[in-house]
Amino acid sequence: MTRSWSSVTTASTAASDLTLDAFLGGRLRLRQPARGFRAGQDAILLAAAVPACPGEAALELGCGAGAAILALGARVPGLRLAGIEIQPAYAALARSNAALNGLPLDLWEGDLAVPPPDLRAATFDHVLMNPPYYDRTRTTRAADPGRDLAHGGDTPLALWLKLAARRLRPGGTLTLIQRAARLPEVLAALPATLGSPELLPLAPREGRAATTVLLRARKGGRAPFCLLAALPVHAGARHERDAPDFAPWAAAVLRDGAALPWP
Amino acid sequence: MTRSWSSVTTASTAASDLTLDAFLGGRLRLRQPARGFRAGQDAILLAAAVPACPGEAALELGCGAGAAILALGARVPGLRLAGIEIQPAYAALARSNAALNGLPLDLWEGDLAVPPPDLRAATFDHVLMNPPYYDRTRTTRAADPGRDLAHGGDTPLALWLKLAARRLRPGGTLTLIQRAARLPEVLAALPATLGSPELLPLAPREGRAATTVLLRARKGGRAPFCLLAALPVHAGARHERDAPDFAPWAAAVLRDGAALPWP
Repeated sequence: MTRSWSSVTTASTAASDLTLDAFLGGRLRLRQPARGFRAGQDAILLAAAVPACPGEAALELGCGAGAAILALGARVPGLRLAGIEIQPAYAALARSNAALNGLPLDLWEGDLAVPPPDLRAATFDHVLMNPPYYDRTRTTRAADPGRDLAHGGDTPLALWLKLAARRLRPGGTLTLIQRAARLPEVLAALPATLGSPELLPLAPREGRAATTVLLRARKGGRAPFCLLAALPVHAGARHERDAPDFAPWAAAVLRDGAALPWP
Repeated sequence: MTRSWSSVTTASTAASDLTLDAFLGGRLRLRQPARGFRAGQDAILLAAAVPACPGEAALELGCGAGAAILALGARVPGLRLAGIEIQPAYAALARSNAALNGLPLDLWEGDLAVPPPDLRAATFDHVLMNPPYYDRTRTTRAADPGRDLAHGGDTPLALWLKLAARRLRPGGTLTLIQRAARLPEVLAALPATLGSPELLPLAPREGRAATTVLLRARKGGRAPFCLLAALPVHAGARHERDAPDFAPWAAAVLRDGAALPWP
């Protein structure tokens, strides 16, 4: 289950079991299912890692209720935002969340294995994704079908990456967040056209194994693979107080909407 | 060219252009070609990372003049040591280096793509390797043919790993050292029978990108991939004195023959 730290449940719409959660110190508000797949830290870290500039266009694959793409829009003004989401309920939430935050969002409801024709005709400066986490051959399904699909959808990772490669302009960037345990699959599925891959491990604390990795690659890039120094998300060697102890960079990203300090 | 730090050239046999180099604070002496492929830091780090115990059997694939397998033998007493090397001149050096250090070594001279029958019949507790570094499609060949083969041999990495998987007993370990830039190829080529992979990045200094990675896997292991915290080889943020500034763990490994502190 994705953690919902830094999100504050401020209201619950009883009819549909939605919560209204605040991100980025309140600058982004998202309606999400109370019990389905809930966006959290990973979506905000992903958005903070996209090297987007005003006026550019960004596409999120499998955008769910829109947390990452809308967090990116909240950070970088004047971006053109787009997303594709297979689950109708989440696609509808992404649309209403965009409106709630005054951010324009082109939203395709559909399967990224069979992209809609007008998505196939579009190109983007940046593609971002937080693809399903669990290898279906190893894990049992989640009780909630929406969360299950978001966590371990059947679309192979290679299809996500192939669509990203096709929809990027030359020189455009892919940014992906994933559990560290799944790194071998991610690297194996990375198309050759997405080059200059840089891997940024995120560790819970200094000296710990990475739990999460961010991968950035560039369409047409030719630099060799680069394994960057890990960023610790929390400060200190252990959690010592009954309060958040984020590292300064993580607090700036999660609470102030800063860009992630890519080395 | 592999660095020859911590090795001290103490003699040169003019006839064949060999040097006699000291490793592990003098506990290991190796004759090597003065200008061909010269073992260095990577071989010693590799040997220090093998979790071998007295009485076990270890095999090095592509052992060159024997630096890594003999460094392992110098660190762990009572190991059974074996190696395979395709280049006759290096195989002969490995044999004479074993004798020079009083370490018994079973040495096969041959191609690991076509292993000799008695190697195919043997199993080992540990396999170690420092496979060729350069992707032939990207780099030009070295001027020295021996160094060229050692740096970028034509045997695909997958064949190295397949032989390792076959020659290990169930529960036995593979330990591999490689340039960080080649990590995607290593992970893609890792056979499914070599599980529980742990990746230990080695960075020149704290906070820098990794230049080298150590990979450990276990035959039949079922744990997910683990990306460990990087170990910095040198202390401090930059090289400030005209003297080695190894981190304490690296000095212990390289000068005192200690085991590498695998987290």
